[in-house]
Amino acid sequence: MKKEIILTGDRPTGPLHLGHYVGSLKNRILLQDTCEQFVMIADIQALTDNFENPKKVHDNVMQVMYDYLSVGLDPKKTTFLLQSQLSALPELTMYYMNLVTVARLERNPTVKTEIKQKGMEKSIPAGFLCYPISQAADITAFKANLVPVGEDQLPMIEQTNEIVRSFNRLYKTDILVEAKGLVPQCARLSGMDGQAKMGKSLGNALYLSDSADLVAKKVKAMYTDPGHIRVEDPGKVEGNTVFEYLDAFAHDKVVVASLKEQYQRGGLGDMKVKNYLLEVLLEMLEPIRASRVLLEQNQDEVKKILFAGTQQAHEVTQKTLNEVKEVMHLIWK
Amino acid sequence: MKKEIILTGDRPTGPLHLGHYVGSLKNRILLQDTCEQFVMIADIQALTDNFENPKKVHDNVMQVMYDYLSVGLDPKKTTFLLQSQLSALPELTMYYMNLVTVARLERNPTVKTEIKQKGMEKSIPAGFLCYPISQAADITAFKANLVPVGEDQLPMIEQTNEIVRSFNRLYKTDILVEAKGLVPQCARLSGMDGQAKMGKSLGNALYLSDSADLVAKKVKAMYTDPGHIRVEDPGKVEGNTVFEYLDAFAHDKVVVASLKEQYQRGGLGDMKVKNYLLEVLLEMLEPIRASRVLLEQNQDEVKKILFAGTQQAHEVTQKTLNEVKEVMHLIWK
Repeated sequence: MKKEIILTGDRPTGPLHLGHYVGSLKNRILLQDTCEQFVMIADIQALTDNFENPKKVHDNVMQVMYDYLSVGLDPKKTTFLLQSQLSALPELTMYYMNLVTVARLERNPTVKTEIKQKGMEKSIPAGFLCYPISQAADITAFKANLVPVGEDQLPMIEQTNEIVRSFNRLYKTDILVEAKGLVPQCARLSGMDGQAKMGKSLGNALYLSDSADLVAKKVKAMYTDPGHIRVEDPGKVEGNTVFEYLDAFAHDKVVVASLKEQYQRGGLGDMKVKNYLLEVLLEMLEPIRASRVLLEQNQDEVKKILFAGTQQAHEVTQKTLNEVKEVMHLIWK
Repeated sequence: MKKEIILTGDRPTGPLHLGHYVGSLKNRILLQDTCEQFVMIADIQALTDNFENPKKVHDNVMQVMYDYLSVGLDPKKTTFLLQSQLSALPELTMYYMNLVTVARLERNPTVKTEIKQKGMEKSIPAGFLCYPISQAADITAFKANLVPVGEDQLPMIEQTNEIVRSFNRLYKTDILVEAKGLVPQCARLSGMDGQAKMGKSLGNALYLSDSADLVAKKVKAMYTDPGHIRVEDPGKVEGNTVFEYLDAFAHDKVVVASLKEQYQRGGLGDMKVKNYLLEVLLEMLEPIRASRVLLEQNQDEVKKILFAGTQQAHEVTQKTLNEVKEVMHLIWK
């Protein structure tokens, strides 16, 4: 049996947070043991809605690398790569652009939602509308057959597979490979303010790189049960972000169960629960932060890791590109 | 004073005809003496509406090279290049795609007309809609400041210049260069059937590679004055394709003037005028065809010329790409 090939990654638009940790990083740490895993820092994709601020994108590349390595992604098991350094990806994008109609792109539910969120209705840049095609280029270039995605990103996988089928049919080949979306089982982590999603732009994120003081400050301000005014009042556990985080991060399930019971009965103050959560989080984050300090001191080593992986990715993607060009009669010798 | 830099070229979708010769090739033969001229065989652009038939595009690359060299384009003065072999072009296209809205592309008059002609209204491929951006990548990659175009292609130059201005403003640079459209003074050559345009798909073209027999056959069937039935009738010269061609190709203007006079007066048969035109055309086409025979026998040499030029073009376009990536903070060392 062939090993599964995974392509995953992040847009380098900011440091990674607990939401990323729960939603994807933890999963990648497991998957790197059993699959061939490529983790892409998608700077070109980040530029589709950050083209006015390329410096921000640039500066976050290394931040994301520190995040990756400090949580335990291992360069011996995972290949890291920087999207902008691989010319095969735009080449493939160009060829695939012939196979997708504008109408089809405009119907993509993920893109539709994002266009609304960003208020782009009247002026969608071509690059933004076409980024599902660019994603298809990324996925197929690595012949990835497994792509970890959120539920809302599944239409992207469908778009990729449509391109794969069109291409293979049109050019009478089977070189391109369909991909399966891998939706993580864990629920999405709420923001610290109780909003359904943690996000940089929402201002409700706890970053893997936050200092202990900042973690303490953010935990202190966390959303709990707004009806829980006095210590002696009974409090709600459902929808209480502090308990959600305890469920996600505390190892001692017995302690958590007893805290929940006490909280619901009344007589347990928010501060006490928060202090316990702080302890749990610091215990988890401390080694990550310590590792990060070391990595930041060895910036050149980290760069080397990224570019060794990018070189490997270059070879993989060029090989696919050559196969694609071969069946399109674009190879000249 | 810096030399003008010209980018021009053709889609390799068929052999070149007399319309190309009058409309562009003759001009290029002059321009190669005074300008730095790049002539691109635009196979990637040809694929935007021939993606279902890449073999046709492939096979016409060498045909177009034979046409170029046989009419007198000189590899010592002109750099030939094959678009698909230059990865800088799709990379630049990707960056520029962020700077152009979908609405702007949909307003492009040239694209609008072509979409109508091709009956694509309901299903425009993304690659076709975006090809003005790809053209902008071609032009700017060579820093071309002069682009020979038909009147109807001027909106393409305007699109390129909009991208140049947006890019330079956004990234606070002046590396990209605006281009001027060079509209040829000569009138467009009609088709042999009297239609306003000569075109492969219109079936009214005389190819540079047509045999003498075929030229004779096509000239015999040419459109003249439909009211000129009997030899002794007066005939019309205006709108008479045979006389249009004589004006375009006959060197002896005195003979042409006297033929016109006789024709309008009455007493000159179409066959006689056509025979004279045939003489004129064969005199012009014979050396071109002889040269072509030699070139076809030296296919490897011709390929070498194309790929030596493409290598030179690779260096030029990579240099521009590096400058572009530098100001976008995408260069990593």
